[in-house]
Amino acid sequence: MAMINAFDPARATALTPHEQTMVARRRRLLGPAYRLFYEHPVHLVRGEGAWLFDAAGERYLDCYNNVASLGHAHPSVVEAIATQARQLNTHTRYLHDTVLDYAEALLASFPAALGPDAGQVMFTCTGSEANDLALRIARAHTGGEGVVITSLAYHGVTSALAELSPSLGEGVPLGRHVATVAPPDLYRRGPDMPARFAADIAAAFAGLARHGIRPCALLVDTMFTSDGVFPDPAGFLREAAAAARAAGALFIADEVQPGFGRTGTMWGFARHGVEPDIVTMGKPMGNGHPVAGLVAQAAVLERFAATARYFNTFGGNPVSAAAGLAVLRVLAEEALPDNAAAVGTFLAEGLRDLAGRHALIGDVRGAGLSIGVELVRDRATRDPATAATTRIVNALRQRRVLISASGPGANILKIRPPLCLSRAQAEMFLDALDAVLREASAAD
Amino acid sequence: MAMINAFDPARATALTPHEQTMVARRRRLLGPAYRLFYEHPVHLVRGEGAWLFDAAGERYLDCYNNVASLGHAHPSVVEAIATQARQLNTHTRYLHDTVLDYAEALLASFPAALGPDAGQVMFTCTGSEANDLALRIARAHTGGEGVVITSLAYHGVTSALAELSPSLGEGVPLGRHVATVAPPDLYRRGPDMPARFAADIAAAFAGLARHGIRPCALLVDTMFTSDGVFPDPAGFLREAAAAARAAGALFIADEVQPGFGRTGTMWGFARHGVEPDIVTMGKPMGNGHPVAGLVAQAAVLERFAATARYFNTFGGNPVSAAAGLAVLRVLAEEALPDNAAAVGTFLAEGLRDLAGRHALIGDVRGAGLSIGVELVRDRATRDPATAATTRIVNALRQRRVLISASGPGANILKIRPPLCLSRAQAEMFLDALDAVLREASAAD
Repeated sequence: MAMINAFDPARATALTPHEQTMVARRRRLLGPAYRLFYEHPVHLVRGEGAWLFDAAGERYLDCYNNVASLGHAHPSVVEAIATQARQLNTHTRYLHDTVLDYAEALLASFPAALGPDAGQVMFTCTGSEANDLALRIARAHTGGEGVVITSLAYHGVTSALAELSPSLGEGVPLGRHVATVAPPDLYRRGPDMPARFAADIAAAFAGLARHGIRPCALLVDTMFTSDGVFPDPAGFLREAAAAARAAGALFIADEVQPGFGRTGTMWGFARHGVEPDIVTMGKPMGNGHPVAGLVAQAAVLERFAATARYFNTFGGNPVSAAAGLAVLRVLAEEALPDNAAAVGTFLAEGLRDLAGRHALIGDVRGAGLSIGVELVRDRATRDPATAATTRIVNALRQRRVLISASGPGANILKIRPPLCLSRAQAEMFLDALDAVLREASAAD
Repeated sequence: MAMINAFDPARATALTPHEQTMVARRRRLLGPAYRLFYEHPVHLVRGEGAWLFDAAGERYLDCYNNVASLGHAHPSVVEAIATQARQLNTHTRYLHDTVLDYAEALLASFPAALGPDAGQVMFTCTGSEANDLALRIARAHTGGEGVVITSLAYHGVTSALAELSPSLGEGVPLGRHVATVAPPDLYRRGPDMPARFAADIAAAFAGLARHGIRPCALLVDTMFTSDGVFPDPAGFLREAAAAARAAGALFIADEVQPGFGRTGTMWGFARHGVEPDIVTMGKPMGNGHPVAGLVAQAAVLERFAATARYFNTFGGNPVSAAAGLAVLRVLAEEALPDNAAAVGTFLAEGLRDLAGRHALIGDVRGAGLSIGVELVRDRATRDPATAATTRIVNALRQRRVLISASGPGANILKIRPPLCLSRAQAEMFLDALDAVLREASAAD
């Protein structure tokens, strides 16, 4: 499938001369594999909180970016980075206090089985590196290779993870050791979804075993972001993880998108009352600074460490550790997970209210500030409103509100603003979406 | 093989109470896969130029770290990072000028075949991600999988690169699609080395083909840093690359360690008068900020881009691009490649002078500030002086001079200071090494 919400240069008409020059320079300098967002790409130059500003000084409400999760250019993180960078930036083969303070603070955010007395942290620079390392660890621990993922998963861009990321499109083949299951879609599969999801996982591992491929891991984004945002019913992951473990596989929670408070709790898996064997994390971990990593139960790391040592040149360096520590501090000081829960609930209620007036909205679901709104052509058939979704995402961009879409039908609005989003900003978003939905229904 | 110059906690006696606490915290929080350097690990808190300072305020001459290549905590890079981070840090799916300015400046440092009119840049966060992406691109371009590397190569830590990094030790298996060749060791193989190295590469691809594995790439660090530093005779890589291309493989130059002026030229491959199909880079690219990437001939990217798009969340973000641009500016303003050439020549001459007085030194080789000094028990047999090398590396550390070692015999001093090293600092290094060698010979 083509990338959702990708800019198509063949249809570029509204661009300013400078934007046209930039698009041409990108094609020449960065080559053909890069993509821009929107029919009319956005040229951003400044950010503050949930606001972004373009080169003309116009203000955008950011309801999409899950990296600058504390708010754009958060001064506490910038200051932590600058202060440490002025002193020293080396690596983990010298002693340094900050990486240890950070590891300890990070582990303290986990339940006991992964906490400071039972869990251990390994630092990478990107979520891809974290998931890739988690796989190496899981293979060493289980002696198996077979991985089960959801059918539109995204887990990263290394060679090993591209094979586990069907959302990259059909041009990128899945590995032979990989089996996919349908996502935990309560809206389309109904109330027996949890049992069916778990049964699918068991069957997938059995299918791999039938081909001589021993189980290694169930790897899922705990909010199923690229599959279409599937949070409910809270708890369904417990049954899924049990199915994976019964097959002899580890349960790896990919928290690269849900983690660090987005769902209203610190970690997405916590909503489900399940304790993963390995948790991977990235995106908001440094509020934009490239820091990522994993937390694993100590016993899970043993076999890996018995055969391999681990060094990541930039991973866990003093500046990255200082950035990560500042993020944890700000999350706590500004009570951002609580804000995500409160404003997320307000936003979801507002969206359900809009659903009362706009038949296009088939489903509203989410946890905290990770929200999916499924648009359908018909509430009975639930036929995806793909074209309308594209129009709405681009119409919101024209009103300077940034979101995108996901799902196999490219019909699920993906709403995931910085965690500092205020209630007033949530209202602005709801007003903008209401206006755009009215235009959309008027156009039909 | 065990890691060269690794700290062994079982032999930790000289540590201060705080250092002991830190070592114990590391083991508990970061787990068993992490390693420290030296018999007595170094606890660093500050850096400036080629100087590092420990927690007690003691000063160390850094002759090892090839990341902070402009000098530790270089103010121009720190300022560029802080300034951009205060404004905006998003990603490459919005338009931004800095990533384009940076890509253009970077390409301008390449010969015509990879320059701004013919080459294209893709940004990652780490050298591992760059090499991993280069492999994906090479596989798409060639349709093959077979990769030839040297027998003690290091190319990174992703799943795909661990299979291509024999220096990680025998616990980490090489891929079935991987063949190794002996390194281009002029000291041990003599003057017909270039022809034999090229012949070995041809034979390795033929061997892979015999097993049905089609050629993909010859992947080498152009200074063969982990193999033991093999720069001479300049030009030998031309023949090697020709052998790879004759087999249908691409030539990928891993410039993660040699790149950005270390060898006295901007790129290590340039000394050899060869133009790679893909060049990967990392470590010093942001002087410690996690930025990395690759440059490829445009035609090489085409098939990859026809099936896959590429997005790296942090790769090429405005802050990383600003850091990279600042590095290029400082390299030019401070003429650091020239300094690396001049001080490197001075250092190599001084080392050859020491070889006249110390029979332990079997060979001195290098380019710019990437220097290997091979220590042997006997100049006739060239038997590696492994134990003496360990003693010397640790004795230098006790004198507060930091280097390490490499090679299959762990007997090659690896000297690669920041590029700003002054002649006076090079003299200090030579004096310290002289003293340590005198002690070593007195101890025998």
